[in-house]
Amino acid sequence: MTLSPHPRLSLNQATTRSLPLPEVVRVCADAGVRGIGVWRESLADTGLSRARALISGSGLTVTSLCRGGFFTAPDRAGLAAAIAENRAAIDEANAIGAPELVLVAGGLPPGSRDLPGARAQVADALDALVPYARDAGVRLAVEPLHPMFCAERAVISTLRQALSLVSDYPAADAGVCVDTYHVWWDPDFPHLLDRLAGRIALYQVADWVVPLAADALLSRGHLGDGCIDFGQITSAVFSTGYAGWAEVEIFRQDVWDAPGEQTVSRVIADFARLVAPALPLRPDWPPPEEST
Amino acid sequence: MTLSPHPRLSLNQATTRSLPLPEVVRVCADAGVRGIGVWRESLADTGLSRARALISGSGLTVTSLCRGGFFTAPDRAGLAAAIAENRAAIDEANAIGAPELVLVAGGLPPGSRDLPGARAQVADALDALVPYARDAGVRLAVEPLHPMFCAERAVISTLRQALSLVSDYPAADAGVCVDTYHVWWDPDFPHLLDRLAGRIALYQVADWVVPLAADALLSRGHLGDGCIDFGQITSAVFSTGYAGWAEVEIFRQDVWDAPGEQTVSRVIADFARLVAPALPLRPDWPPPEEST
Repeated sequence: MTLSPHPRLSLNQATTRSLPLPEVVRVCADAGVRGIGVWRESLADTGLSRARALISGSGLTVTSLCRGGFFTAPDRAGLAAAIAENRAAIDEANAIGAPELVLVAGGLPPGSRDLPGARAQVADALDALVPYARDAGVRLAVEPLHPMFCAERAVISTLRQALSLVSDYPAADAGVCVDTYHVWWDPDFPHLLDRLAGRIALYQVADWVVPLAADALLSRGHLGDGCIDFGQITSAVFSTGYAGWAEVEIFRQDVWDAPGEQTVSRVIADFARLVAPALPLRPDWPPPEEST
Repeated sequence: MTLSPHPRLSLNQATTRSLPLPEVVRVCADAGVRGIGVWRESLADTGLSRARALISGSGLTVTSLCRGGFFTAPDRAGLAAAIAENRAAIDEANAIGAPELVLVAGGLPPGSRDLPGARAQVADALDALVPYARDAGVRLAVEPLHPMFCAERAVISTLRQALSLVSDYPAADAGVCVDTYHVWWDPDFPHLLDRLAGRIALYQVADWVVPLAADALLSRGHLGDGCIDFGQITSAVFSTGYAGWAEVEIFRQDVWDAPGEQTVSRVIADFARLVAPALPLRPDWPPPEEST
């Protein structure tokens, strides 16, 4: 019995992290999944040209490239190096046909307690990168990470903060990535829906599973295994006019240990049950630019 | 060489969790610490009358009672039971001379994904408790917990949210507890200082130490061992007009494993180095109600 995947479902390849890109592409294509979120590491492993050929040959749409960012650095030279690395990431996004490059801000530099300073570096980096990304036809998607990652991974912790960061630029150039795992708790979220209109570049879904794993990065779980109300949050995201993909992105050891086909089957079934009912009824899919 | 403790320093007894209350009181008194934050569990262990006699006999001021709350429940009966339990906690705060009862909201009820519903329960509980607490001369201190505890421990996750919850009541009846461990990451904090004026009921300090401990509850550390800028955050807290104690509250296994005297010495030294320089220069201590 095969369930046909919802047409908005994209598999972020982190969910099947143990598989090399060619395998992920094959598993997605076999299952009928139409979108894939790609990681830079796998482009490096597979080779950019081969990866592009594989993906386009399979009929999959690249829904995002993960990820750029990690801007915070102990000094100006470090920041400059991070900006250069992000230009390379933008080039890759362009080459692979990814409409967005997801940006994770970076944590406090080693030994630093200067949170405002680190946040200012992120703003400086964005300012340097937006024109480059625009020229490459790539939209930057600033992803607020859960506040528990503030010190080590992302000094941008809330949607309000990410919105304020991108509001200096046209919405077509810079938006935010809404990941349920990172924002589900945020009491501000319902108050930001007006400001989010046109600013959501990407929607990612994973569940918050308790108790937290010893490595909190790996506490995500399959939709339904945790405490997130996907109906409510999905409705909110699409109420802003967002009409893009929903990428399933799960970092969790036992998910990685499972066979890829099994993981993708589970993802398809959970999505149909928990996310799909909250998607707009209007048949606005695929979006206009892809239907030509 | 003995360093005299800063007069605003209070030791929350959770920092010396392995010691019974009589021992904590002795260690504090010997070291010259003037304030103590008391836990209900230790009142139960020691007996309320004996605890009161011990503390007042030692000259220590009780700066808070930890803790009430845990309002979220699967049903109305559960909520009613939580409210009853909190009335008992208010009575204890009154009996022990604690000016504040710290409230931790409680997480999602088991199996629930209804975050707005859980938050509504907290508001209902507060509404039921404020008059009772006022009559007992106890101020309720709503403590937002770090968002990583949202599912399991506290659906109140930010100062903005806690402020909004208490704003229905007079400031003398309901305020917020600002704990550096829970709020240091919050980009909203600097924007809330006006609204925090008169609403900070208690200031608690502990550092955020990385990497996170396997049990995130125990990731707190001695001031200086983590990445919080105590000068900046302390200045912000006192800029609101707060003129109370700073309670050092550290949950961490290796701190609990250390001898109590050693822990208290370290607390005194760190406080002098990292918190004291940011305290107001004006000699407004002890506060008027205690100097009579």
